[in-house]
Amino acid sequence: MELLKEKILKEGRVLPGNIIKVDSFLNHQIDPLLIKEIGKEFCRRFGDRGVSKVLTIEASGIPVAVMTGLELNVPVVFAKKQKVANISENVFSSTIKSYTKGTDSTVIVSKDYLNDMDRVLIVDDFLAEGQAVLGLSEIIKQSGASLVGAGIVIEKGFQNGYKRLRSLGIHVESLAVIKSIEQGKIVFDI
Amino acid sequence: MELLKEKILKEGRVLPGNIIKVDSFLNHQIDPLLIKEIGKEFCRRFGDRGVSKVLTIEASGIPVAVMTGLELNVPVVFAKKQKVANISENVFSSTIKSYTKGTDSTVIVSKDYLNDMDRVLIVDDFLAEGQAVLGLSEIIKQSGASLVGAGIVIEKGFQNGYKRLRSLGIHVESLAVIKSIEQGKIVFDI
Repeated sequence: MELLKEKILKEGRVLPGNIIKVDSFLNHQIDPLLIKEIGKEFCRRFGDRGVSKVLTIEASGIPVAVMTGLELNVPVVFAKKQKVANISENVFSSTIKSYTKGTDSTVIVSKDYLNDMDRVLIVDDFLAEGQAVLGLSEIIKQSGASLVGAGIVIEKGFQNGYKRLRSLGIHVESLAVIKSIEQGKIVFDI
Repeated sequence: MELLKEKILKEGRVLPGNIIKVDSFLNHQIDPLLIKEIGKEFCRRFGDRGVSKVLTIEASGIPVAVMTGLELNVPVVFAKKQKVANISENVFSSTIKSYTKGTDSTVIVSKDYLNDMDRVLIVDDFLAEGQAVLGLSEIIKQSGASLVGAGIVIEKGFQNGYKRLRSLGIHVESLAVIKSIEQGKIVFDI
């Protein structure tokens, strides 16, 4: 998606550890018009798959998920990060490992909002090692719903997420794939 | 806003402690079309005030803020809940007391995304005691920006938030005001 790549090149910053900061339009400050275009693009790519729900994780996946749900005309569900130790019986839950933060977190979705009739599109801002998508797909599995695919805004193509998800048969569509970071500069795949 | 009130009456649930659960369309599962209409309504109410930025808090304020930013055609910033104790120098920060959870939390906004030229509209899903809006208005004050007002989806009119904010001169617009909860039933103001 050219508009997105241009924005990443113009405003993205590379921090030590190959962390890509795009918080001027995606993670902290949000450009609603760009996010709307991203929603349209996911709709173009997944619109014929019978998606009944869009699933993401709080907080930075929410803007993209909401715009995608608007375009697809389906409800959006965001998994919540659980702070307390005891998990209620009325939720699906899974554990997500964060490589950058070095922590595990538990995410939950109420059983009221996913069921075995649902066809679910996962949407997230970044794909690195694929742990967030794996955690959400575990929740989808618990609910009996079908996973249609994963729509990713920015994929770090030099990490293992895409391969890992593909090997599990998950259809992944990334709008911008970063092939490498060379001397602090972002290089896209094609 | 009639569409919103109907939705609250149809799907809202009252939990012990007068907690109003609207997680089928606002807090956990999200109805994108309704949220878009809410964005339009805030645009109608604040569109002539020269708003340059919409500010909210992660996570449940984000959908409404993004749709409002889209309608107003301005960037959205969401304040982040800070987990770590040490606050970076490059952020504005304030502490928000939660009466329901009985906890204090620190929220931050990068200094890159608010400045003294900004005219800021705060948007949030609920208004109860007004602590979230107060915390955000403190951040706006630190940045030197002007606070245009606060757009609230659901106001608990039987709590003190509205009075508290009005007494500080903050212009508050709530799309649904709950006057009371009588025997577990929600009663709106007018």
